[in-house]
Amino acid sequence: MDFYPVAIEKLIEEFAKLPSIGHKTAQRLTMHILNLPEDEVKEFAEALVKARGTIKYCSVCGNFTDKDPCSICSNPSRDKETICVVEQPKDIMTVEKVKEYNGVYHVLHGNLSPMQGRGPQDIRIRELVSRMSADIKEVILATNPNIEGEATAMYIARILKPLDVKVTRIASGIPVGGDLEYADEVTLSKALEGRKEIK
Amino acid sequence: MDFYPVAIEKLIEEFAKLPSIGHKTAQRLTMHILNLPEDEVKEFAEALVKARGTIKYCSVCGNFTDKDPCSICSNPSRDKETICVVEQPKDIMTVEKVKEYNGVYHVLHGNLSPMQGRGPQDIRIRELVSRMSADIKEVILATNPNIEGEATAMYIARILKPLDVKVTRIASGIPVGGDLEYADEVTLSKALEGRKEIK
Repeated sequence: MDFYPVAIEKLIEEFAKLPSIGHKTAQRLTMHILNLPEDEVKEFAEALVKARGTIKYCSVCGNFTDKDPCSICSNPSRDKETICVVEQPKDIMTVEKVKEYNGVYHVLHGNLSPMQGRGPQDIRIRELVSRMSADIKEVILATNPNIEGEATAMYIARILKPLDVKVTRIASGIPVGGDLEYADEVTLSKALEGRKEIK
Repeated sequence: MDFYPVAIEKLIEEFAKLPSIGHKTAQRLTMHILNLPEDEVKEFAEALVKARGTIKYCSVCGNFTDKDPCSICSNPSRDKETICVVEQPKDIMTVEKVKEYNGVYHVLHGNLSPMQGRGPQDIRIRELVSRMSADIKEVILATNPNIEGEATAMYIARILKPLDVKVTRIASGIPVGGDLEYADEVTLSKALEGRKEIK
């Protein structure tokens, strides 16, 4: 039934393996690749192999890096006494974009999800605990504000409490520019709970 | 501002060059690649280079192929007297899936679009005309039923008319399983125009 040559079928198949890319999109991307100059395709292929080949995790925070420790952990101007805990390396990028945070990070590489069989041993909680010392002033839990992220934050908070370190959780509430009318009840309840006095 | 290593930034950039893939998706795809086993990434990279490197166009119909002429043009059981004209190689696949058509194809590699500066010289119309001979019984114009495709079909029909060959156009109308209520006026008018007597 398939009248595409094997090499094309194979590429469609490879594209279709990527998350959120179905067969139709894979076909469209393949047609795009076939119409590109050959050296651009080679550049893409090299970028794939190189990104996967040269990347390792920072031995301190777990961020993606090409040198160890990573550029954030090895930056002398960053405040090493504050650790922001995130689920994934890409979350570091998100926090960095705000340009407000000058501490360091800890990447869990996942969250706790009994449903998917991910327990405390499967994410980098032990590594976080081993970073705790008298120097650490605050641990900011910036896991996602969903069920798994919330549970992960609560779990870590309980583990760190005996170590006498200040543990905080990022605020949930109505997004800035949002509309009260369209806020769901859970978010609104969080927004009320986290209300601040105007002085 | 960017805290990803260069190799990761480069891969995100490469993914973002693909059609319909924005920066966020490119980032997500890159994270996916970084979590894959290294040999799977190599396989993907090889598929890219191989697809682009081994593929050429069939010298007869313009379809993608790894041998020339392509598997359809060189298939002795296909009816060489009927040519179905399509815009892109992927359209061949679409027609083949119906399993009703046993003729051969002609890929235009585009359509006429004065808006985008694509004239008759830019698509494979000359090649189509040169395929016309006393043997050809019918040319089926299966360009897309949109403005450009329609204009392309009309243009080709006018060119082929003096050559005394039967030229047909695929029917437009309400899709099977569709609902009259939701049909737009142009489609409905085409459906009325193309009505058939029930015998």
